[in-house]
Amino acid sequence: MEFQEQWNYYVTLTESMLKVQMEQSEAPSILQDGMTYSLFAGGKRLRPVICLGSCEMLGGSATEALKAACAIEMIHTYSLIHDDLPAMDDDDLRRGKPSNHKVFGEANAILAGDGLLSLAMQLVSQVENKKAYQAVAKGAVEMVYGQSLDLNGKPDAETLFKTHEKKTGALLKAAVLAGAYTANAEQRQIDILSSFSDHFGLLFQITDDILDITGTREQLGKSVGKDERDDKVTFVTLYGLDAAKSEAVHVSEAAIMDLDRLDEDTSFLRGIVGKVLNRSF
Amino acid sequence: MEFQEQWNYYVTLTESMLKVQMEQSEAPSILQDGMTYSLFAGGKRLRPVICLGSCEMLGGSATEALKAACAIEMIHTYSLIHDDLPAMDDDDLRRGKPSNHKVFGEANAILAGDGLLSLAMQLVSQVENKKAYQAVAKGAVEMVYGQSLDLNGKPDAETLFKTHEKKTGALLKAAVLAGAYTANAEQRQIDILSSFSDHFGLLFQITDDILDITGTREQLGKSVGKDERDDKVTFVTLYGLDAAKSEAVHVSEAAIMDLDRLDEDTSFLRGIVGKVLNRSF
Repeated sequence: MEFQEQWNYYVTLTESMLKVQMEQSEAPSILQDGMTYSLFAGGKRLRPVICLGSCEMLGGSATEALKAACAIEMIHTYSLIHDDLPAMDDDDLRRGKPSNHKVFGEANAILAGDGLLSLAMQLVSQVENKKAYQAVAKGAVEMVYGQSLDLNGKPDAETLFKTHEKKTGALLKAAVLAGAYTANAEQRQIDILSSFSDHFGLLFQITDDILDITGTREQLGKSVGKDERDDKVTFVTLYGLDAAKSEAVHVSEAAIMDLDRLDEDTSFLRGIVGKVLNRSF
Repeated sequence: MEFQEQWNYYVTLTESMLKVQMEQSEAPSILQDGMTYSLFAGGKRLRPVICLGSCEMLGGSATEALKAACAIEMIHTYSLIHDDLPAMDDDDLRRGKPSNHKVFGEANAILAGDGLLSLAMQLVSQVENKKAYQAVAKGAVEMVYGQSLDLNGKPDAETLFKTHEKKTGALLKAAVLAGAYTANAEQRQIDILSSFSDHFGLLFQITDDILDITGTREQLGKSVGKDERDDKVTFVTLYGLDAAKSEAVHVSEAAIMDLDRLDEDTSFLRGIVGKVLNRSF
């Protein structure tokens, strides 16, 4: 299968299951509307896609990893809803649309986030592979740690890496590893993919910081240059744009070198690395 | 063992494990402080106690049910933190102490709640018995549904019952059933305990509503008559104090009649029903 075809297939699988989960939920309608609004607000589905790709790369079946993949997307979505709240980052726009609390109000937005995390917990409790759901839970926990680091105090270089390793990296790693565990990966493969995830997570965050400066409003779905206005420490503000770009290339190479150590056909994951490096999605 | 001795034993077990979980967490210190503050703010531990009691009543070991019990207490605690937020119930006091956001600020309080729910997800993912952790996840999901019903619109009598069945009852039921599943309960026992939980959850909510009128500030740890001032529909405002008291007695009898159908020694759970009816804790 071509790269884009495979990507689209995973997105379709993911969105079908997310839709079913929402339709089957017995949530009161306003809560259901709030959760559905953010779940289907144009997310790129990077996390579920990489989860399913990692699983199939190691010989597993995408459908088997689908519950973990969708749980991770729910966790990602809840974190965005809470992150946008006035008390947190206070963002009115997300992916070009009004953020959840602008539409449903703060109280309902808090509950939509809580609801999605709880539904993720319920969905992942149906996952057969214990290590897979433990990976998801670990990702959820560490993401909150990262949020807290990000919120409290200005990071120096070392803390910045740690913050992003947790805030962005943890859930991406959870996605890769949950897929791998579902395919009954050997420890050697887990170790390699764990290293890959570290590099990939860093790549994602650096290119995110770059995009905040160089991206268009359409590309970002939110206002440009927000990090700078918020006086945030990012890879770009800390090292400058050129050094950040070099670092992005450097960590993408490191991620590819990790994949080189696997015997399997790693072309899909390589394709994702390229997509994130060029932010062509 | 005497009732109070058994209760204290379960509280000690619970608090030891909660303490270890908090100490072992690698959360940034402000997040750890925030989560610990609310986890140890004087909660009565009713949910973990009834979970462990239910497990031992059916021949299981309390230590086996301890992770589920502690996960439930974490979920209960996160819900209180988020419930007290300015955008939600806007309560400055909880159990006689400043509520979480009054001490740590709104953003950190949101994250402390998210962190506790995530840690609960992680803890419950270590539970061996799959039905037990699925019961916990279901409780977490339904509790949010109840919060949403409670938040949006004034309930009539029917909705009031449904709201409380979810908001208060779901997590109490999760506690009873997670304990029972851990003891490898038969379906007949689950059915009986499920009915028991329904009655017990209702008893808890009715006596809570009564206490809001008749309790002292010391007893409540928050201001008295808040429901009335907030113009909330409760069992007391809907039916009056005397009818609410009769209803409390009525559902406590129904809960006891459920327990009569079990062959096991149900004295501990009976004791809990009495304790809640008299609110002597």
